[in-house]
Amino acid sequence: MRKEMFGHEIAVLRDTFRRLLRRHAKVNLQKLLEKTHPADLALIYRHFNEDEQKALFSLMETSEQTAEFLGELDESILHDLLVNESPQRIANVIREAGTNDQALILGLLPVELTKSILELMHDEDQEEVEEMMAYPEDSAGSLMYTDVFTMHEETRAGEAIAALQSFEKAEMVFYLYVTDDEGRLAGVISLRDLVTTPADVHLEDIMIKHVFSVRPETDQEEVAKIVSRYNYLAVPVIDVDNKILGIVTVDDVVDVIREEATEDFLQMAGVGKDREILLKSSWDNAKSRLPWLFTSWMGGIAAAMIIGVFDSALESMVALAAFIPVVIGMGGNIGTQSSTIVVRGLATGRVEVGNTFMVIFKEIKVGLILGVFYGLLLGIVAYLRFISGPPLLGVVVGLSICISMLIAATIGTFVPLFLRRMDIDPAIATGPFVTTSIDVLGVLFYFMIATALLPI
Amino acid sequence: MRKEMFGHEIAVLRDTFRRLLRRHAKVNLQKLLEKTHPADLALIYRHFNEDEQKALFSLMETSEQTAEFLGELDESILHDLLVNESPQRIANVIREAGTNDQALILGLLPVELTKSILELMHDEDQEEVEEMMAYPEDSAGSLMYTDVFTMHEETRAGEAIAALQSFEKAEMVFYLYVTDDEGRLAGVISLRDLVTTPADVHLEDIMIKHVFSVRPETDQEEVAKIVSRYNYLAVPVIDVDNKILGIVTVDDVVDVIREEATEDFLQMAGVGKDREILLKSSWDNAKSRLPWLFTSWMGGIAAAMIIGVFDSALESMVALAAFIPVVIGMGGNIGTQSSTIVVRGLATGRVEVGNTFMVIFKEIKVGLILGVFYGLLLGIVAYLRFISGPPLLGVVVGLSICISMLIAATIGTFVPLFLRRMDIDPAIATGPFVTTSIDVLGVLFYFMIATALLPI
Repeated sequence: MRKEMFGHEIAVLRDTFRRLLRRHAKVNLQKLLEKTHPADLALIYRHFNEDEQKALFSLMETSEQTAEFLGELDESILHDLLVNESPQRIANVIREAGTNDQALILGLLPVELTKSILELMHDEDQEEVEEMMAYPEDSAGSLMYTDVFTMHEETRAGEAIAALQSFEKAEMVFYLYVTDDEGRLAGVISLRDLVTTPADVHLEDIMIKHVFSVRPETDQEEVAKIVSRYNYLAVPVIDVDNKILGIVTVDDVVDVIREEATEDFLQMAGVGKDREILLKSSWDNAKSRLPWLFTSWMGGIAAAMIIGVFDSALESMVALAAFIPVVIGMGGNIGTQSSTIVVRGLATGRVEVGNTFMVIFKEIKVGLILGVFYGLLLGIVAYLRFISGPPLLGVVVGLSICISMLIAATIGTFVPLFLRRMDIDPAIATGPFVTTSIDVLGVLFYFMIATALLPI
Repeated sequence: MRKEMFGHEIAVLRDTFRRLLRRHAKVNLQKLLEKTHPADLALIYRHFNEDEQKALFSLMETSEQTAEFLGELDESILHDLLVNESPQRIANVIREAGTNDQALILGLLPVELTKSILELMHDEDQEEVEEMMAYPEDSAGSLMYTDVFTMHEETRAGEAIAALQSFEKAEMVFYLYVTDDEGRLAGVISLRDLVTTPADVHLEDIMIKHVFSVRPETDQEEVAKIVSRYNYLAVPVIDVDNKILGIVTVDDVVDVIREEATEDFLQMAGVGKDREILLKSSWDNAKSRLPWLFTSWMGGIAAAMIIGVFDSALESMVALAAFIPVVIGMGGNIGTQSSTIVVRGLATGRVEVGNTFMVIFKEIKVGLILGVFYGLLLGIVAYLRFISGPPLLGVVVGLSICISMLIAATIGTFVPLFLRRMDIDPAIATGPFVTTSIDVLGVLFYFMIATALLPI
């Protein structure tokens, strides 16, 4: 029995593997491999160096467990592990995997290697995998299991149960899908309902006729929304003729939801969308973070130029410089708040493109409330502190804070909504664009207000 | 049959409801209510005003569907909808709900109302609900279904199936849990395995004996991690004597994962953790966003004070002011990158407290790489642009950028790791603390370097 574990126990298991590896205790290692849950093994792999990863993998048998382990592994580790393996060994170990995992694994490898592996597979498997690899990334098609348990609608419940008993890949059966004479999806029956139905009843008499289905090109995020909204265990994927191509199961949907959230987090912080960034080298890590910082850098240069234009104003009142950080900081922060609320609202379906106007209007109101509050607060402090400056300085800073926050809340709300309407992932560009534009606009309005109101 | 839908169709359905409500077409409304999936109805409720919400609710029957609808509703809408209802009506509509939904709903209402409702419930239900309400919020106990399908280990497979047929709440059955003579959890059998086993086999001979279970006080995030790591459909919740109290099912885990991600998003942006912030009034919205902005405001004041100390330096070289935005902006952005990577890594288990040192070391390296790159780039630009200033200004700005980014990456990595070690949710304080401290430290180091290197 493979025991599951987490946290502390994972660390203990990792150390045990390490010790056995150092001692080259092959038999013990194989025993331990057999007892370890594939998901745990995949987790421990993050803590091994490349030599340890390779040594352990060479000891793994070509079993279902090994196939499952590969399916759970982080993509970058998987790539490094397999890229130098022989095509034969890879073909052997992935034979037991589902078609979706096979397609995923082969998609990570160099084209030449993939070709050699495909040639070593059974003709039928080969065709299926190639078909799956043709579906767009992150689509229902690339995610689905193709071994679906279907029965004709005139089958009796008892016959269906007997058929289930001889269905090989039964582990993925949550529902029984029912087809009509043309092989089209006609209904669905839960396993529970099937079990609790008298043996001689026809499936068509107990099946639920309206089945929610998706197309292979449906985005995985849409699939996740459906599964999570209606509490499904699986969703069928159908072709144009209403024939079942496969099912997307809830365990994969759970992964999708986690992964999409992680990608949104990283993208909003301008780190790219590589979920495995922590596994990358410092150089690769720096490389994927460089672009956003460049946007921010350009914004900084633009702000410097704007301030340069106002250098005579600064010369006659250096106290102006002291409030630059707070004007752009308050703007940047409220802008981040607004864009986060909207980006997450779009991802969870709380913001629909239909109610755009109301969302923007509300955020402007919030921006105004908070802007007036902090503008007043800061105006007062500025006034009290810089008594050597003119009394108007407090008014200028307060007004600038208020305007900066109002603009920031508006931009922070508008940008992701606009991107979504343009069919661009709102998480991608929102973070960089919002903070950078507020740096520039905040400084600009601050100095414009200052030169207009102050005697400089 | 209740048809499911999403996106555009939801909007159409909402408009239909609206039209019928205006016409007071009671019969048509009731028909439409019956045909609408509870999850869709809960979604549409977000778009109704309070009068529409109340009018529609008064038409709903005391059915399982209505109970399900309440369970799917946003908490703030649920509260407003029920707070003025009679205890009798509430007791009636929630009778069909699971104990966990009952406890959730009652937990939202005023204590007096809850008491009156509880008194109207059956003694047994009342006791169960009160027990559930005593579990900590966001724990396995508050999330679990208490109607679990269990059988003694000496039961035969055929008998178990017969028992399942008369088990009332069968919709939540994914696994059959097997108990020993003392009623302790002894094993588990999937419904699939049960169906495909000959009728005379004892359950103890086919059950999986190592069952992964949680305690009622286990945090829901831990439960979600287990379910998502091992691809379970449900996890049993057991007491100290190993007896089953309930099960947490995958559909609730899906909701937990979404909700926890949303809370982390909002907290990192300093918006509090109210997932329903979009449903709140602008005032309430502003109120929950005020605290982080106050941190940022204090940071701004501190930065202004620091710059005030260096006003003689500024007077002799106003060009220094121009680069304040870029020094703090680059720091703030790389700090946000680092803290986002770490906070998300902790949430998904990619960062464990065990490998803290390596993570910090790597981020410092990334900070150094990017700091040197952008420091050099900016030094050059600054040098070329401000030829009237001393040539050293470019060096000062470049060096400040580099140091600001290095500090920011370090703080951004260290703070969430430190918070986690202190058992504080790293998402809460990371955002505000990191950006604010970089505003202050960035300005401080910038002016210290300037006064040290420049002839001012």
